Amino acid sequence: MTVTPQLGAMLHRSLRVYQVWGANTEVGKTVFSTILCGLTSTYKPEEKTAYLKPVSTGPAQDADGCHVSRFLPGIHAETLYQFDLPVSPHLAAQVSQQNTPSDGEVLSKIHDFASRHASPSPGWLFIETAGGVHSPGPSGTTQADLYRPLRLPAILIGDAKLGGISSTIAAFESLKLRGYDVELVLLFQDSTYQNHSYLTSYFQENHSIPVHTAPLPPSFAASNDTSNMQTYYASTTSLPSLSSIAAHLASLHRTRVAHLQSMPETASNTIWYPFTQHQHLTADKITVIDSAKDSHFDTFHPDSQTKGLLRPMFDGSASWWTQGLGHGNPALSLAAAYAAGRYGHVMFAEAVHEPALALAETLLAGVENKRLKRVFYSDNGSTGVEVGVKMALGAARGRYGRGGEEKVGVIGLKGSYHGDTIGAMDCSEPGVFNEKVEWYEGRGAWLGSPGVRCEKGVWVVEGGGEFGTLGEVFDVEEREERGEGKGYEKEIRAILERLVGEEGKKFGALILEPVVLGAGGMHLVDPLFQRTLVKVVRASSDLFGGEHQSADHLDWSGLPVVFDEVFTGIYRLGRFSAASFLGVDPDISVHAKLLTGGLLPLSVTLASDSVFRSFLSDDKSDALLHGHSYTAHAVGCQVALETLKEMTKMEKDGAWDWAVSSQHRKNDQSCPVGPQQLDQPVRPSVWSVWSPELVEWLSRQDEKGVEGVWALGTVLAIHMGSAGGAAGYKSTAAKGLQAALLTDSDRDGSVHSRVLGNVLYLMAGQTTTEETVRRVQRLVRRGLGDVAC
Amino acid sequence: MTVTPQLGAMLHRSLRVYQVWGANTEVGKTVFSTILCGLTSTYKPEEKTAYLKPVSTGPAQDADGCHVSRFLPGIHAETLYQFDLPVSPHLAAQVSQQNTPSDGEVLSKIHDFASRHASPSPGWLFIETAGGVHSPGPSGTTQADLYRPLRLPAILIGDAKLGGISSTIAAFESLKLRGYDVELVLLFQDSTYQNHSYLTSYFQENHSIPVHTAPLPPSFAASNDTSNMQTYYASTTSLPSLSSIAAHLASLHRTRVAHLQSMPETASNTIWYPFTQHQHLTADKITVIDSAKDSHFDTFHPDSQTKGLLRPMFDGSASWWTQGLGHGNPALSLAAAYAAGRYGHVMFAEAVHEPALALAETLLAGVENKRLKRVFYSDNGSTGVEVGVKMALGAARGRYGRGGEEKVGVIGLKGSYHGDTIGAMDCSEPGVFNEKVEWYEGRGAWLGSPGVRCEKGVWVVEGGGEFGTLGEVFDVEEREERGEGKGYEKEIRAILERLVGEEGKKFGALILEPVVLGAGGMHLVDPLFQRTLVKVVRASSDLFGGEHQSADHLDWSGLPVVFDEVFTGIYRLGRFSAASFLGVDPDISVHAKLLTGGLLPLSVTLASDSVFRSFLSDDKSDALLHGHSYTAHAVGCQVALETLKEMTKMEKDGAWDWAVSSQHRKNDQSCPVGPQQLDQPVRPSVWSVWSPELVEWLSRQDEKGVEGVWALGTVLAIHMGSAGGAAGYKSTAAKGLQAALLTDSDRDGSVHSRVLGNVLYLMAGQTTTEETVRRVQRLVRRGLGDVAC
Repeated sequence: MTVTPQLGAMLHRSLRVYQVWGANTEVGKTVFSTILCGLTSTYKPEEKTAYLKPVSTGPAQDADGCHVSRFLPGIHAETLYQFDLPVSPHLAAQVSQQNTPSDGEVLSKIHDFASRHASPSPGWLFIETAGGVHSPGPSGTTQADLYRPLRLPAILIGDAKLGGISSTIAAFESLKLRGYDVELVLLFQDSTYQNHSYLTSYFQENHSIPVHTAPLPPSFAASNDTSNMQTYYASTTSLPSLSSIAAHLASLHRTRVAHLQSMPETASNTIWYPFTQHQHLTADKITVIDSAKDSHFDTFHPDSQTKGLLRPMFDGSASWWTQGLGHGNPALSLAAAYAAGRYGHVMFAEAVHEPALALAETLLAGVENKRLKRVFYSDNGSTGVEVGVKMALGAARGRYGRGGEEKVGVIGLKGSYHGDTIGAMDCSEPGVFNEKVEWYEGRGAWLGSPGVRCEKGVWVVEGGGEFGTLGEVFDVEEREERGEGKGYEKEIRAILERLVGEEGKKFGALILEPVVLGAGGMHLVDPLFQRTLVKVVRASSDLFGGEHQSADHLDWSGLPVVFDEVFTGIYRLGRFSAASFLGVDPDISVHAKLLTGGLLPLSVTLASDSVFRSFLSDDKSDALLHGHSYTAHAVGCQVALETLKEMTKMEKDGAWDWAVSSQHRKNDQSCPVGPQQLDQPVRPSVWSVWSPELVEWLSRQDEKGVEGVWALGTVLAIHMGSAGGAAGYKSTAAKGLQAALLTDSDRDGSVHSRVLGNVLYLMAGQTTTEETVRRVQRLVRRGLGDVAC
Repeated sequence: MTVTPQLGAMLHRSLRVYQVWGANTEVGKTVFSTILCGLTSTYKPEEKTAYLKPVSTGPAQDADGCHVSRFLPGIHAETLYQFDLPVSPHLAAQVSQQNTPSDGEVLSKIHDFASRHASPSPGWLFIETAGGVHSPGPSGTTQADLYRPLRLPAILIGDAKLGGISSTIAAFESLKLRGYDVELVLLFQDSTYQNHSYLTSYFQENHSIPVHTAPLPPSFAASNDTSNMQTYYASTTSLPSLSSIAAHLASLHRTRVAHLQSMPETASNTIWYPFTQHQHLTADKITVIDSAKDSHFDTFHPDSQTKGLLRPMFDGSASWWTQGLGHGNPALSLAAAYAAGRYGHVMFAEAVHEPALALAETLLAGVENKRLKRVFYSDNGSTGVEVGVKMALGAARGRYGRGGEEKVGVIGLKGSYHGDTIGAMDCSEPGVFNEKVEWYEGRGAWLGSPGVRCEKGVWVVEGGGEFGTLGEVFDVEEREERGEGKGYEKEIRAILERLVGEEGKKFGALILEPVVLGAGGMHLVDPLFQRTLVKVVRASSDLFGGEHQSADHLDWSGLPVVFDEVFTGIYRLGRFSAASFLGVDPDISVHAKLLTGGLLPLSVTLASDSVFRSFLSDDKSDALLHGHSYTAHAVGCQVALETLKEMTKMEKDGAWDWAVSSQHRKNDQSCPVGPQQLDQPVRPSVWSVWSPELVEWLSRQDEKGVEGVWALGTVLAIHMGSAGGAAGYKSTAAKGLQAALLTDSDRDGSVHSRVLGNVLYLMAGQTTTEETVRRVQRLVRRGLGDVAC
């Protein structure tokens, strides 16, 4: 994987920067760039115009920058990379003796060039691409992808030749689906093909984009004919059709900046934010996200006259735990567009379409759970949990018979959280998330569970001793063989007996977030405890309505077991399924968030055949009467399919080997995540992108308020002391570190993070690079006062 | 609006049809088509190959069909439309003396041609497009859109010239975002530019699409040189790199048909369907939707050897009430792709992005409700309702104080339905949808409401007399002035007094589906009743925790009023807001379904400032603690913005004038929807795409079991008699008509519909054409035995 410096999108307050793209090669990009430079340099004489050609191929004396300089000597025109061979840059770079610049280097140099030309007074910069929108840059990345991190407003030079309507629209669509804003289309007038006439209506009517035209240059092939071209440029820049362009572009730029500037105020008057006490949300606290790329937001900061107004910010909450394959991922955009183009949304009851069926099969294979045989689609984790609970309670109800006064509840864990709809809320014990919700009523009983974290260099299982590595904690079969589960077993059985026997409670499901209790406070739970809980519940049919005899060992017994993997599944913790850490197969499993790689809402509830069969009857009202209008929407299913294909491929190809290999224990270090370094490298069973060194270091920062820390998969959780104040969700202990991360920044930006009470967590995506993780780790250490970072 | 015959997608069991597209003009489409024809005609001698050029420009003797015939005399090669001028077909057609064929005619002729060549024995058909993928067809529609209804598997001819990498990828993306499957890329080898080398890796790695290459033809410009070309064709078809293509294409086709054939069985073993009793769902009852376009599904029917295997089916439930701007709408695909490319999903708490903010502003302006000032985003109607109820109850709770034993409930209507999550279920009275859901408990009280329907030619308001037109029923202000609301007022106040005074109930919200109770049985409710209910509740603060004094007339009073417009809003009933029919402004309003034009899930809950303010406090736990991870996902917001822009434009431009004008009363007809025909045409306040003639006719079919009917906006509801069997949701009375509609078909297909108990409803999209509606109307009449249709 190449390491790309993250430099983010470009927007200057006074320097108006436009990128000039071609519908094809030889459509007149350089001629129009020269016209644009001419128009802007005469627009307001005090405003300077610059021209940049990042990559040029062909003889240097014919280069586009030279063309601009020749006709507009007052313009600063520069070429960053010049390759002599007149072919696509990726080929020319291969052939040349020069080093091939990486995409990051190209972007970095463009940023540097623009910064040098940015000043408090207005100016212009036109950046001309090479060939068509998808012509490869020096590294081989096509330009539409290569330049996307800058997300500069685009001027598309249309193709006036035969076939040019097609190439212009297709080029436009390729830019659009990467999130570019095309502000203007320019092309030559050709009286035979009249593309300009068609395209003017097309772009105006469908996209409200103005199209301007210029006459064909006197002799396009012989544009070296300097005097002819001088006459041409002199005449075109005075054409009424073109002369308004500079004012138009200046106005677009002004409007864009003013709009970005106004957004926090408008938002604070218009939006009702989720999970937000608006009393304290002033406009200045609202982050304007202008775009996002890979693991970063590009956020607006109006506080500078010369520095860029957009700055990258590491998306440290993985956009509320959803982000996986990176923001602005073109493969996911194309998957979404394909399904939209093929189906839109088509109704799903008693119907089937390819992406929904293929996704169902992929999921059932991926979770490697012999019990799960059915896929029910819904829209988000909360609805997916409600479906799962309806399934479980529906399956269990047969045990108790109808008509009982008391409804059956769930067995869950203290500190769990399963979603915001009432039914999902009811699965959790009373707490700050729900205590003031009118209709909330915790329906069930919740057991405490022992946490796991690294404290002062040691992995501590609450009440269960210390471990050398997290891998040892997770070696649940070994620990079980050693008898470590016996205590849990007795304790759990005793609690269940008390709840059922003494308190007379009835239960219809066991529901768990495997491995990590997420929204409830980012608690890593001893996997042996969860494993034992499942086993005890399954062996305790006597407590749950009587013995359930089934010949099939895949049938549920005791209670249906529901795993809420909404947060923990689909590689968030490094594995397809979080259940695999526990080595037990749930009867029902709920997945969402990362399911679509971080693009849009979709949820699945997987169920066993025995749960499914309990809803079969001749009575329609015995069916699972649940279903959302957009059930199994094709766009979501297609994006999820693409996501799972990519993530399983990444796993197979060892895309995280850089992180996996860092987990091995080094001699001079305690508290790593993984096992001892071996002669033969093996993939440890548990690993994290966050380095053992960071975990070790953090675990020793008790003087800075750190009480414990853990890292698993893409998640890092830092538990801070509540320092005498309110504990839990209302705590503000982690706010200090959060503020430090948001304020402090290196050249690649700062870190946006979320806290849950006294816990600050950071979450990477599956495509977050090693370099980015290292950067963020440095900022974390600096945020806690490590002066060496 | 042009009228396009709906002919649907094309797939034959034995005839393998491929469409040949060009990355640009002059990339070798005809040469490769000839190679393909040559390869397939020698693949298995008994298989016949045909070639079709639907539209050709330039002199007839140079036409591509002639080229194919010249080198492969055994091939049936045909051109459908020939225009002499060698320019884009839309220009050539304008200039020529011929009539310009409509898109529908072109598609129709292609279907006819393929049908003539389809036989029980295998064969081949290659259909060559003109120019590039977006070159306009004769009507001006670009070919990628023009041919989309056929959705033929595509072979893309790449561009070997300088710039050709870009044009090939861009052309591919334009096809992909319209839902085409590109099966193969072919291009010439050019040793200078080596595009084939780059593109082979690109398509293989990113899209698993094979790329095959052929040497450049001897003299591409002089391809008339017959003997050279003969030698060329002879040599290329024997090249190992190309000779496998016929077998590959045959295998793809075989696999596709076999896969489609297997899907119902796989689905019946894998999918857990929403709202479905699986006991009765055998594989043969599952509809395979291969793709969809505009108002139709393209469904798979394996029961024919020679007829097409795909047949259009009118999407009569508007895909569970979601569909608005048509399946496979390229503007929505592009909007989705743009937002995915610009943002992916970005976290929304304390952040803002352009599509979310613009959508919020558009919605607040669009509903024209002076109270609504805030927008809360969630994922679907059910979650949107839960948010609305949390808001209302939270606002109301201050009245009663905390700590009371009994929780506050809602006032609603009998027969209402608000969603499938527990909190939304709890807003409705007990019934078949919820009675077996363990945790359901209706929290509130529900009033009966008078229905409205046309019976035997008369509009009847239950218990409230007869009306000449539906417009008169909806003239609520006039009726109120006449005193028609007085009875409702007394009745409602009396019920409320009983509920609160005698039964001691406490209420925290009034929740209504304005105008139509949807999922509860598609009941049109007297709008004057709903209007009066809101007014009485607002005037009855004394019953709901004491007087609420506020200087601001926009503050809620009595109870916060929640309108669930999930089904009825956003033009489903012909207007942006369904509340406008009642002439009252709710304090909270929930929207979803049509919000995204029918593409993907998104919901908004709009709230008044007074509701919003009641959550302000210094205590975080007083905030509205609700929020889904994908809150305000950019893709949904962008698609919704595009949808609202298009729908409001359609309204402004009079896109439904054909339907609106049909509502005027004709002398010889009773029971129309609209008012009297006037001298000056005015837009009636209520109208429907379903014609008054149909409503009239249906309302008189009591002998066929029709008890009543209504039409409003895009909805038609036919209430059938329960005929002595089970009434309500479990009724099967409407199943007969549903089966008739599904089985009966004209050349443009059959009608897929859904029933709700004894009600069969039909729902059009906002872009459904007049012609399609008329067709469906004929099939409805035929389904009820009208032999004249």
